[in-house]
Amino acid sequence: MGQWIAGQWVAGQGDGFDSVSPYNGEVIWQGDSATVSQVEQAVKAARVAFIDWKKLSFSERETYVLAFAEEVKANSEEIAQIIAKETGKPIWETRTEAGAVAGKIAISIRAYHDRTGETHREVGDNQIVLRHKPLGVMAIFGPYNFPAHLPNGHMVPALLAGNTIVYKPSEQTPATAELIIKLWQKVGLPAGVINLVQGAKETGVALADSKGIDGLLFTGSANTGHILHRQFAGQPDKMLALEMGGNNPMVISENYGDLDSTVYTIVQSAFISAGQRCTCARRLYVPVGEKGDALIHKLTEATNNILVDEPFADPQPFMGPQISIQAAEFILNAQANLLELGATSIVEAKHTKAAFVTPGLIDVTKIDALPDEEYFGPLLQVVRYEGLEKAVELANDTRFGLSAGLVSTDDKEWEYFVDHIRAGIVNRNRQLTGASGDAPFGGPGASGNLRPSAFYAADYCAYPMASMEGSETLLPATLSPGVKL
Amino acid sequence: MGQWIAGQWVAGQGDGFDSVSPYNGEVIWQGDSATVSQVEQAVKAARVAFIDWKKLSFSERETYVLAFAEEVKANSEEIAQIIAKETGKPIWETRTEAGAVAGKIAISIRAYHDRTGETHREVGDNQIVLRHKPLGVMAIFGPYNFPAHLPNGHMVPALLAGNTIVYKPSEQTPATAELIIKLWQKVGLPAGVINLVQGAKETGVALADSKGIDGLLFTGSANTGHILHRQFAGQPDKMLALEMGGNNPMVISENYGDLDSTVYTIVQSAFISAGQRCTCARRLYVPVGEKGDALIHKLTEATNNILVDEPFADPQPFMGPQISIQAAEFILNAQANLLELGATSIVEAKHTKAAFVTPGLIDVTKIDALPDEEYFGPLLQVVRYEGLEKAVELANDTRFGLSAGLVSTDDKEWEYFVDHIRAGIVNRNRQLTGASGDAPFGGPGASGNLRPSAFYAADYCAYPMASMEGSETLLPATLSPGVKL
Repeated sequence: MGQWIAGQWVAGQGDGFDSVSPYNGEVIWQGDSATVSQVEQAVKAARVAFIDWKKLSFSERETYVLAFAEEVKANSEEIAQIIAKETGKPIWETRTEAGAVAGKIAISIRAYHDRTGETHREVGDNQIVLRHKPLGVMAIFGPYNFPAHLPNGHMVPALLAGNTIVYKPSEQTPATAELIIKLWQKVGLPAGVINLVQGAKETGVALADSKGIDGLLFTGSANTGHILHRQFAGQPDKMLALEMGGNNPMVISENYGDLDSTVYTIVQSAFISAGQRCTCARRLYVPVGEKGDALIHKLTEATNNILVDEPFADPQPFMGPQISIQAAEFILNAQANLLELGATSIVEAKHTKAAFVTPGLIDVTKIDALPDEEYFGPLLQVVRYEGLEKAVELANDTRFGLSAGLVSTDDKEWEYFVDHIRAGIVNRNRQLTGASGDAPFGGPGASGNLRPSAFYAADYCAYPMASMEGSETLLPATLSPGVKL
Repeated sequence: MGQWIAGQWVAGQGDGFDSVSPYNGEVIWQGDSATVSQVEQAVKAARVAFIDWKKLSFSERETYVLAFAEEVKANSEEIAQIIAKETGKPIWETRTEAGAVAGKIAISIRAYHDRTGETHREVGDNQIVLRHKPLGVMAIFGPYNFPAHLPNGHMVPALLAGNTIVYKPSEQTPATAELIIKLWQKVGLPAGVINLVQGAKETGVALADSKGIDGLLFTGSANTGHILHRQFAGQPDKMLALEMGGNNPMVISENYGDLDSTVYTIVQSAFISAGQRCTCARRLYVPVGEKGDALIHKLTEATNNILVDEPFADPQPFMGPQISIQAAEFILNAQANLLELGATSIVEAKHTKAAFVTPGLIDVTKIDALPDEEYFGPLLQVVRYEGLEKAVELANDTRFGLSAGLVSTDDKEWEYFVDHIRAGIVNRNRQLTGASGDAPFGGPGASGNLRPSAFYAADYCAYPMASMEGSETLLPATLSPGVKL
């Protein structure tokens, strides 16, 4: 019963697929994909539901969303458990994800009013009114790394603005999606306002291709994002919001301050979620010389110390597995490729069992043309540099631009960094993977299409309607030249 | 000396072209197009200038822009004259355009701070800072109908945000563009911050194709806009803001109130700027029956009374010519086509001399499948309807969605209209061509790509950079599970 279409749970009529635990191979969910015709049914259901949903007042829609927040809170442990089972992320971490899902609601309501909402103003005989209107049916594509939080960050703003939704989660995390949708069902969301279709690429292509959608909100790889952008060519009327990856640089200045806390910040930046966050540090710029050597030494130790284990293990691990054995192989292949290009391993990333890969540190300084690829896992590339300007130049040498960081106690260096770095999330002395929930999120270049999400998601979930209003038509004292009634 | 590249006036090396008065055939400007290589020079100049321009503080950039506003005010009559000569719009109207160019500055500064700008906030040990950064080199494509005001509405927000510009005006209005750029030159704008390239389609294609641009701001036809959207396929990193046309409906309710002021509002909506505004009413929905008949009767009289003449004529005309003889022919052909499809002429649009077309009223009620085209001129299509719901349904039957209007003294009807109409500018009892300068501007569907301009232009001229900042790295009292330093 994988699909929720027009308020009904129905079985998929397409290929069957399983959600398999990445840490012990247990089958967590079994179901069938939605066919092209089921995707169309879902889009139609969303179109039909749109008529009444958009007519509701904001506070009526808000009521549903607030009720959902309560359900999320009441079921947060269940949410954390299913995410941990499906993704292998440690339970302490998935508990924070469940918390973020509920936390998103209040932020999104504030964003709606701040960025969109309704304003009235009187100028002479005119009322100047600014309203914001929903776009229609939004297709939402969810990623696997935050299978609850990230799609929720698209769904809530879209619903508040008056849109209806067809949601296709990652085929790696159908169970998490199903649980979240059941919470929406529980609050009595009208039939068709959210529809869930399960499946992999084919289902996604069918949804993106559907004539009935008015927009598509995507979080995922740059590769798929670019394909979607080509697919939408010549359809400027369809809103496309792409949140893609990064090849994120973290620059350590000579003036990094305390060694331990700096190493801790690097570990949090590179290896949290087993490196499966789009904001994770991928490239670490470390100064040549003693201070840099000391840092590498300590970082090597800390990396070797990282506990990698199953999500419910005791003691709790810092890292779980990669999302799948394929993903694990991808990281190991990337490491092998870098070694072949001339890199030196500092801490080798190793496959242990199932989809587990231990954290890796690799010195790529000697590679002349470092591949500008996103290695979505626990493999941190180290580059030794001389002079901060050079480091920033190297940091910017990427087609991506999602996150970047500087560790420095020197205000002047930070000013220089902010002025020169090209990225959407730019942190100082803080982990790259930290982002404020009430700030916009996204980056230029291949990281997205400048429809930054999070707080600014409100912007693209509604279009402005500007009005000049008067209670009756007016005849001015003097008519325009050349007009006679 | 048509091109302004890197702060130098240089002759175009491409095909020669003239700007010819649409009302008396006088040659107003002669010059040569920029070649592909000159366009590249201009883009390179903008890239080079970007490095220093983006480093300036906001208030330094603001100083240039405010100085430009003073130049515009000091030279407003000259601006009005050249626009009148080049477009044939009456001088009283072009004076309001010159005023709008200066007026845009203060609004754009406010929009920058309201919509983008910089905010700081402290949360625990973190500074949460939101900055906005320029995108880079913006290509700006100007239209002919407001050859000073509309490109200015893109240039000013782009410059304030720290971008540099390559500007290609319409090949119909090179002289206006040149004058405006000379005012920028007068305020000492650094070389390369704005570059001007003149020419027609080939120059435009070269600019849109240039690898060195980071965004394109377009105001023009839906046809060209869709071509640009296809041209940008697979390049989500390039910002594309499309402001296209409309097939704008104006619905007259049974409860239209005063006859004269209603007819006046219709005339202003349909025939101002000789119908060459993208917000002009193209379709007029009039109720069947006596009240509607009375309206048509009076509107016919008023349409026949409209004075059409040269821009400097005395008495002053309401309407000048179309922009070109081709544009005039386009409107006459549209009229002929509608007549062939079964329409009835109420007031026939007629070619008089040069590019002049007198205003036309045509009853298209009997046409089953009314072409959904934008007739960018003084041809108003009348549809008689029964029941407001039907009128709104017909009004929405368009792929466009720029402007729409209702004339009604009934608040309930207005509520219904606002709830059901799909357009970005939606006015009540006011001309459709009226829009508040400090509101966003744009519409869904084929009217644009939901990057509404005017007040929201600030949004797409900058990308957000969100930061968490601390003066030094921190080691928490308790480390994350599974981490040991």
